[in-house]
Amino acid sequence: MAQKPSIPKGTRDFNSETVAKRSYISETIKKQFQVYGFQPIETPSFENSETLMGKYGDEGDRLIFKILNSGEYLKKISDDDYNSRSESVITSKISEKALRYDLTVPFARYVVQHQNEIDFPFKRYQIQPVWRADRPQKGRYREFYQCDADVIGSTSLFQEVEFIQLYDGVFTALNLKGVTIKINNRKILSGIAEVIGAQDKLIDFTVALDKLDKIGEEKIKEEMLGKGISQDGIDKLKPLFGLSGDFGSQIKSLKKILSTSVVGLKGIEELEYINTAISELKLKTANLQLDVTLARGLNYYTGAIFEVSAPDGVSIGSVGGGGRYDDLTGIFGLKNMSGVGISFGLDRIYLVLEELGLFPESVKENTKVLFINFGKDEALESLKAITRLRAEGVNAELYPDWITSGKQMKKQMNYANKRDIPFVVLVGEEELKANLFTLKGMSTGRQEKLNLSDLLSRLK
Amino acid sequence: MAQKPSIPKGTRDFNSETVAKRSYISETIKKQFQVYGFQPIETPSFENSETLMGKYGDEGDRLIFKILNSGEYLKKISDDDYNSRSESVITSKISEKALRYDLTVPFARYVVQHQNEIDFPFKRYQIQPVWRADRPQKGRYREFYQCDADVIGSTSLFQEVEFIQLYDGVFTALNLKGVTIKINNRKILSGIAEVIGAQDKLIDFTVALDKLDKIGEEKIKEEMLGKGISQDGIDKLKPLFGLSGDFGSQIKSLKKILSTSVVGLKGIEELEYINTAISELKLKTANLQLDVTLARGLNYYTGAIFEVSAPDGVSIGSVGGGGRYDDLTGIFGLKNMSGVGISFGLDRIYLVLEELGLFPESVKENTKVLFINFGKDEALESLKAITRLRAEGVNAELYPDWITSGKQMKKQMNYANKRDIPFVVLVGEEELKANLFTLKGMSTGRQEKLNLSDLLSRLK
Repeated sequence: MAQKPSIPKGTRDFNSETVAKRSYISETIKKQFQVYGFQPIETPSFENSETLMGKYGDEGDRLIFKILNSGEYLKKISDDDYNSRSESVITSKISEKALRYDLTVPFARYVVQHQNEIDFPFKRYQIQPVWRADRPQKGRYREFYQCDADVIGSTSLFQEVEFIQLYDGVFTALNLKGVTIKINNRKILSGIAEVIGAQDKLIDFTVALDKLDKIGEEKIKEEMLGKGISQDGIDKLKPLFGLSGDFGSQIKSLKKILSTSVVGLKGIEELEYINTAISELKLKTANLQLDVTLARGLNYYTGAIFEVSAPDGVSIGSVGGGGRYDDLTGIFGLKNMSGVGISFGLDRIYLVLEELGLFPESVKENTKVLFINFGKDEALESLKAITRLRAEGVNAELYPDWITSGKQMKKQMNYANKRDIPFVVLVGEEELKANLFTLKGMSTGRQEKLNLSDLLSRLK
Repeated sequence: MAQKPSIPKGTRDFNSETVAKRSYISETIKKQFQVYGFQPIETPSFENSETLMGKYGDEGDRLIFKILNSGEYLKKISDDDYNSRSESVITSKISEKALRYDLTVPFARYVVQHQNEIDFPFKRYQIQPVWRADRPQKGRYREFYQCDADVIGSTSLFQEVEFIQLYDGVFTALNLKGVTIKINNRKILSGIAEVIGAQDKLIDFTVALDKLDKIGEEKIKEEMLGKGISQDGIDKLKPLFGLSGDFGSQIKSLKKILSTSVVGLKGIEELEYINTAISELKLKTANLQLDVTLARGLNYYTGAIFEVSAPDGVSIGSVGGGGRYDDLTGIFGLKNMSGVGISFGLDRIYLVLEELGLFPESVKENTKVLFINFGKDEALESLKAITRLRAEGVNAELYPDWITSGKQMKKQMNYANKRDIPFVVLVGEEELKANLFTLKGMSTGRQEKLNLSDLLSRLK
């Protein structure tokens, strides 16, 4: 009854090297989250369906993995519903739970549910997997990790400032220099929509603009036209696409374009505030860049929006994003809680570090020494030494099976070699008698006979 | 459209203190796994249904969480099947994936799928959540973590020896002294079944015996009788339940009882081998105890079996278990791969450490210093100092909103208090002019004015 084993599309097995590299990224991010004062929370992998459904648009609802009810789940359906044989009728009857789609909605649910235990402003981070029934492609999986930090309960723009510093801090700590933190403000997008006479089509406008990188200027203009935005209005976008120069000169042009929009000017004011503070505080290795065409698809953003792109020459899309939202917890009944947050895309960052060769050599917590197994008595003596080494924190192993031929000796040495274990120790009959250990460096081939305490200090 | 938020039965939200305590446990276990030479792997949260189904018995199959197919999943069902309206017919048609139920079967699948990339003997550890649609109760959840270490590809009994040391190492590192590692051997159970004339009912015998702790001697005898084991045979169990004394004297009695069973004597030999080695190597704080009534429900065990119970006085059931299995990968087509492994129950260990007050004070990575926010200019100056502190690895925060009244000053101090932040820094108008920082200890109330470099060295 042997099955040919495989795993579901869009999921991955991680071997020890990959796990080590992934932990290196998440531990680096975690460390920065902590120095910035964020505290960890964790939420369940699945939520009640009503918590998630309707929060990510129709497309999102479709991509949420639903969990089948246990037991006699078909009994709950009325005959009429069953006979409809329609997924839209039946799904909610046979599935009451769903895998989390992102960390933001569960976070909002958490804040509302635990509001009486939380000290606001609440700075939390969360590093957990999420699941989406999306079409897999390079850098996009059906199970992937999000690393989120959010502050909820304050409208202070210093938070935006700190999040930009946090991005800079994390990517600098990962030795990934020269990322670009693109910033825009939803209020500027509202202002633009107002100026081109499309304020009632803000969402359509934003959704179209969000595709600029993917489909280009002409296509998004077509899409806007299709959504009922006038040709006249679209023509007014011309100067926006042509904006160039540094932060200051772009702001200057923007002020002219948006001079008649109150909300637009408010957005500009916020951007200037943030940019001034960052200029004073200085970034270590990242660049802050104004990008008025940055839209970000999610409709809950209301203020600043961020997106981070990898250094020039690495084609991977964004490695992070985020923004300000004024009413995320409103959907769960807690009004007037402004929040702002950012996310790191662990899987994309992994691909970038791999491509640029930026993982440190020391990333893998490998075994330092393998004891060759010459027989029962020798192995027991080896285990005594190994026990001492482990107590000192040295990663040490005994080859479990003992040698009964020269071929097997070679097998054990090969095992050390293949696993990149830098040292082997040989305890044969001779060593056993003399109470000594032969230590051999695998790369140098150098051997030396040592007593236990010298062996310990050599390997520590 | 406000919803009253909640989470599914048997799942949990973890606040920052709980996350910190849980990481403390898993990091301690991980560290020990590494010094013993185990390497991490990770597998997807969900597997193809055929990988999991049929591996845990009927009860297990029932407890596996199934994931509903995406899209028009009802179309795949034939009219006849649909009209049967039977879960046993329909489930496999509308669900092709399921959440992992344990880490052992996915590990077996991993080994077979990646056999050509693996260097055997393969020592892997895995710390990931698993899901079971079980009835929730104290210490039992629908989402919980397993921490497993296994070696596959060697029959050496030194591995059993090392796993006992590993249990001892982990619980000692967690400062949980006096756990009892109970050991038995499936071959002894086979021997007993043979001696009482029930070798054809080994599974029934084992399943019944496994319930000894829960339902007591009389009830399990009734169950065995019900399963067709003779009264005569059951009477022969008498001396087993009465076995007492140390490892050596129990072994002596066992040898008499099992003198006619080849497999039973083999089991005894293995136990003696392991016990001799452990006596030589010595355990740090744990006790090793022979328990011939230890059965463990899982049928894939074939040799040594382990179970760890918390120190006397803590009623929580087992905090770990494991054993030797000779053919786990056989179900996926890779024969003759003997393995042995152990598991730690993170959630149960958490409850024990909490009950005994064994979590270290330092477990929470809290913020060390909060800068009170007196206004825009003061805040910017504070952020400059905070940026320096963070670069030195000090967890530091700025209160995001600035003070516009005395009441708000108190609010910020309260915030530091409630969050157990030990220091606050005040940068008011006066400090700003003098280029100084007032550092205040929250517990002592002591204040001192410092320049930046003194502030840095004080808080490092």
